[in-house]
Amino acid sequence: MSNDTEATGRETITAAVLVIGDEILSGRTKDKNIGYIADHMTAIGIQLKEVRVVPDVEAEIVGAVNALRARYTYVFTTGGIGPTHDDITADCIAKAFGVAIDVDPRALAIMKPAYEKRGLEMTPARLRMARLPEGSELVQNSISTAPGFKIGNVIVMAGIPNIMQVMLDAVTPQLKTGAKMLTETIELFRPEGEIADMFGAHQKEFPDVSMGSYPFTTEARAFGTHLVLRSTSSDRLATALAGLKQKLAAAGKL
Amino acid sequence: MSNDTEATGRETITAAVLVIGDEILSGRTKDKNIGYIADHMTAIGIQLKEVRVVPDVEAEIVGAVNALRARYTYVFTTGGIGPTHDDITADCIAKAFGVAIDVDPRALAIMKPAYEKRGLEMTPARLRMARLPEGSELVQNSISTAPGFKIGNVIVMAGIPNIMQVMLDAVTPQLKTGAKMLTETIELFRPEGEIADMFGAHQKEFPDVSMGSYPFTTEARAFGTHLVLRSTSSDRLATALAGLKQKLAAAGKL
Repeated sequence: MSNDTEATGRETITAAVLVIGDEILSGRTKDKNIGYIADHMTAIGIQLKEVRVVPDVEAEIVGAVNALRARYTYVFTTGGIGPTHDDITADCIAKAFGVAIDVDPRALAIMKPAYEKRGLEMTPARLRMARLPEGSELVQNSISTAPGFKIGNVIVMAGIPNIMQVMLDAVTPQLKTGAKMLTETIELFRPEGEIADMFGAHQKEFPDVSMGSYPFTTEARAFGTHLVLRSTSSDRLATALAGLKQKLAAAGKL
Repeated sequence: MSNDTEATGRETITAAVLVIGDEILSGRTKDKNIGYIADHMTAIGIQLKEVRVVPDVEAEIVGAVNALRARYTYVFTTGGIGPTHDDITADCIAKAFGVAIDVDPRALAIMKPAYEKRGLEMTPARLRMARLPEGSELVQNSISTAPGFKIGNVIVMAGIPNIMQVMLDAVTPQLKTGAKMLTETIELFRPEGEIADMFGAHQKEFPDVSMGSYPFTTEARAFGTHLVLRSTSSDRLATALAGLKQKLAAAGKL
């Protein structure tokens, strides 16, 4: 339903998130990154279009990276860049791009002194975290030093939420962004079934404003509905919102 | 790394989750279903292999349903089966299977009296929720009546977590299940980098036991690591666990 370029003269920038890790699929770890990245993308004017979660299996990771990077402006991956044998993301990204992977002198130059300062040995396992696919740019990790990286349109980040968040902040200034998606919400203490026909008709009137209906329950009033209107054009959004409020009021539903 | 049939004589049963909804991708709603379904699958002996989140766009939903149902024993979808115009999941499933969709007399027979009892009109919008693809079986909804459904290997559920959960319970007795994945965890108050080389070598010794390393931080002790071993064979799991504990103890890491 978006028609951003026409409405705002700005290009639409899209993204996908690829969550990598057996621990999410087994239920052992509950993902906290998808919602965070979704909020961040909306805030900076990038439209998140797809999310995938795949296991720590090379063919699955390579396949998903290549499918997603061909379709969206950016792909953000989380997970699998630690020091252990099950951390295979960097190797898979190299394979997906068909490039070599080796210890990166820039990564090593950051990691070695930081580890020494903390009294930690540069074990072969830790050295693994300095391995980057050829052609990568570093993404700074202000928490635990071992960097993420960006290659082509793919940004590779840690899975631990607070580390992922500082990496996302670090890479954000380099990202192209588009028109911001603006949102208006009407909260009704009515079940969705009561306003669905009217709301559907209103969507038809404003095909360029994306409209969604999200039921909720309250202890006091049983069923409620959030009607959410989204557009990159503040004018169109305001017109659609005013029109909807008028219809709801006329029907005694507001 | 799984070799379940050999280890246990039971077939491996796999699943994917498809989350449908713009509200998850915009960040407005934080998904609570993926982690819940992941836990449930692990508990009943089904291996969750992939998750996708797609927007309320027909081509995206149809494409994802067909990709996933061809690859996995089951596909569980959440979201998009309410009464409003943006609830297009049932139509998309019908399209994916190439079958007709219409008001289902069994669904109507459940919904009509329940709605009347609550003093709710059977509006055209509510009637939409009784529309099911041809060949579907109903999945009972003990909370708000409007059913989910199962067609082929695809189970279609609501997006609201408590309704999704009762639908998942309702469909579970009909599912084929495989050997349960058993898990053992060792908690170390050491950073992963210290044990990664040893742990990788141990994985090579037990290729049939899946081993993952998950760092955590504590206020008191800085960096810790959970070493997780998973197998459908309790014997192999016990042997791998004992061997790993011995190695960790010998190295003074336990």
